[in-house]
Amino acid sequence: MAGNSQSEFKGVEEALKAIEGPEHEEVYRVLYGRKHPEIAISDDAKKLAESGNFELKGYSVSASPEQLRTPRIVRIAAIQNQIVQPTTAPVAEQRDALHKRYAICVLHPRKTPMDGIRRVCLQRTNDQISYSKKYGIVIISPILERDEEKDDVIWNTAVVIGTNGQVVGRSRKNHIPRVGDFNESTYYMESQLGHPVFETEFGRIAINICYGRHHPMNWQMYALNGAEIIFNPSATVGALSEPLWGIEARNAAIANHCFTVAVNRVGTEQFPHEFTSGNGKPAHKDFGHFYGSSYVAAPDGSRTPSLSRTQDGVLIAEVDLNLCRQTKDSWGFRMTNRLELYAKSFTAASDPEYRPDVRKAF
Amino acid sequence: MAGNSQSEFKGVEEALKAIEGPEHEEVYRVLYGRKHPEIAISDDAKKLAESGNFELKGYSVSASPEQLRTPRIVRIAAIQNQIVQPTTAPVAEQRDALHKRYAICVLHPRKTPMDGIRRVCLQRTNDQISYSKKYGIVIISPILERDEEKDDVIWNTAVVIGTNGQVVGRSRKNHIPRVGDFNESTYYMESQLGHPVFETEFGRIAINICYGRHHPMNWQMYALNGAEIIFNPSATVGALSEPLWGIEARNAAIANHCFTVAVNRVGTEQFPHEFTSGNGKPAHKDFGHFYGSSYVAAPDGSRTPSLSRTQDGVLIAEVDLNLCRQTKDSWGFRMTNRLELYAKSFTAASDPEYRPDVRKAF
Repeated sequence: MAGNSQSEFKGVEEALKAIEGPEHEEVYRVLYGRKHPEIAISDDAKKLAESGNFELKGYSVSASPEQLRTPRIVRIAAIQNQIVQPTTAPVAEQRDALHKRYAICVLHPRKTPMDGIRRVCLQRTNDQISYSKKYGIVIISPILERDEEKDDVIWNTAVVIGTNGQVVGRSRKNHIPRVGDFNESTYYMESQLGHPVFETEFGRIAINICYGRHHPMNWQMYALNGAEIIFNPSATVGALSEPLWGIEARNAAIANHCFTVAVNRVGTEQFPHEFTSGNGKPAHKDFGHFYGSSYVAAPDGSRTPSLSRTQDGVLIAEVDLNLCRQTKDSWGFRMTNRLELYAKSFTAASDPEYRPDVRKAF
Repeated sequence: MAGNSQSEFKGVEEALKAIEGPEHEEVYRVLYGRKHPEIAISDDAKKLAESGNFELKGYSVSASPEQLRTPRIVRIAAIQNQIVQPTTAPVAEQRDALHKRYAICVLHPRKTPMDGIRRVCLQRTNDQISYSKKYGIVIISPILERDEEKDDVIWNTAVVIGTNGQVVGRSRKNHIPRVGDFNESTYYMESQLGHPVFETEFGRIAINICYGRHHPMNWQMYALNGAEIIFNPSATVGALSEPLWGIEARNAAIANHCFTVAVNRVGTEQFPHEFTSGNGKPAHKDFGHFYGSSYVAAPDGSRTPSLSRTQDGVLIAEVDLNLCRQTKDSWGFRMTNRLELYAKSFTAASDPEYRPDVRKAF
């Protein structure tokens, strides 16, 4: 197995255990919001996770009972993993090894009280699986899409595979990083599909791919189109983004009254040739540590604990989608968002002739 | 002194001290970003703070040296306080008592290594002070503005008082809460001033008042107008917003490559008559605990520790504004924001005839 980084720090929640009693409760409340009860995991499932070398955690995110709607409970599974074969292995071998790895992560929990996973999100890798039909689940699988019908253009895409085993939707990456030498715009294009939301059997979902999480408007437009869960499959490393990771997807859940699912890769991957990062530092053979830490954020400002920073894992969140509208009604952000004002302001500001409203104050 | 809530939890950072050694460093890094060194506080200043019963903390937020620009270092002081007189005291007495309290908080640090405070933000209360000219500082003071020249309309306003001792700018609240029975729109109006940015001797500043922090577009429009520091004077209580507090202003600093200053009130305030919150719960005589926890967030994703949850305090942040452009250049969020796309999408979405882009995916 490539890229395990054994000496890395495992994660914040483990460390917080050093704080005891009521103080721990308070720290947890301020940092994570209300506490979500764990879902029971059977001994069988624990053994499977242990022999498969992946972490397995599950939390239940409840909503208040309503008089006119029944609860709308769905189970989300977020899978984070490291690469299985080294980066120098033939591409098909790398892909096939990942498929086998997902088979372990996705299918084993089916035998357990985790039964009934209804939606699965994979971190950003270039492959695709098709257990949807067999197991009655919706899968979101990030791929690198070669558009053979359209001039061989490449897109950074996530496909939605329905319970019928077919690709029932696709979302493409709206915002492409231009960070130092890491400029992905040299090999694929910005999406021209806008902000599609997919109505599945289990709720309305959208996919904000990777670097798009840095853009609050991107999350917001998916939410304005009705998304109840927005997935953010990512592949990002510590030095660049770790202090941002717990902030951005969670802020999006809060601001937009929806669930967000932030999924990241794990491990440190070695490449055969050195490359630079355009930051004035020496060339290197890895990107740094992909810190995992996948989590689910709820519209009420709470969030689940993270998966580990160092190990493969499956995070289950059993969520009641009624919480979206309940929070929307209670906090009123949607009602007070003054969308027309911003439509006008952003239109003005995107004009090359726009002069910022700066007033001399001295 | 009214409303001190002695049994309350003091704050997260105190509790984190239970975690030791390298693990503490890692937890701090993930939760707060890079560590900002403390500014030295003299024994005199410590004594003043102790006798004045306020906390005094200071941090330095550096940027990298540049070849063509000198550092642009300014000192920000964020003052959080509880009310001094009870809510039943005559309004003029309440105001005057607050003025005296600010005199202690603002002026005493002048005698110390904290000398040279260049900008001061007060949490949201209805008063105003005028030490600006005497001490060469810019003051941001939230007030309830009675527009006597315009039909006696009331605005929720923050004035900017320049070093000349004059009001050199004003910003009004763009988003008014509609939360249960707490509907401020029954006594003041939404701003019609847009998103003004004020160019002061010490940098370009803007003020996002209170509930406006829940709206990412609000922060963004101030930033698009060039704000380098956005102040968020707030008055907010635990049950409603505490798990959001560390997220929203910080996300705004990250997404918009600027500093944000989140300032909150402290204490629990008693009112003579019961009132309801429109949440189905019994009537009560207080809003809950205003949890303080004021902090400064930097564009690189880092933030200072908070002031206490329970005590008055002054938080000094000595920041190098060059960090804004440095982060903007390095992360590229501004360059990749696709503002035109969102100007069009939000214009479409704000049309009452707009149909959300929901695609059947089963």
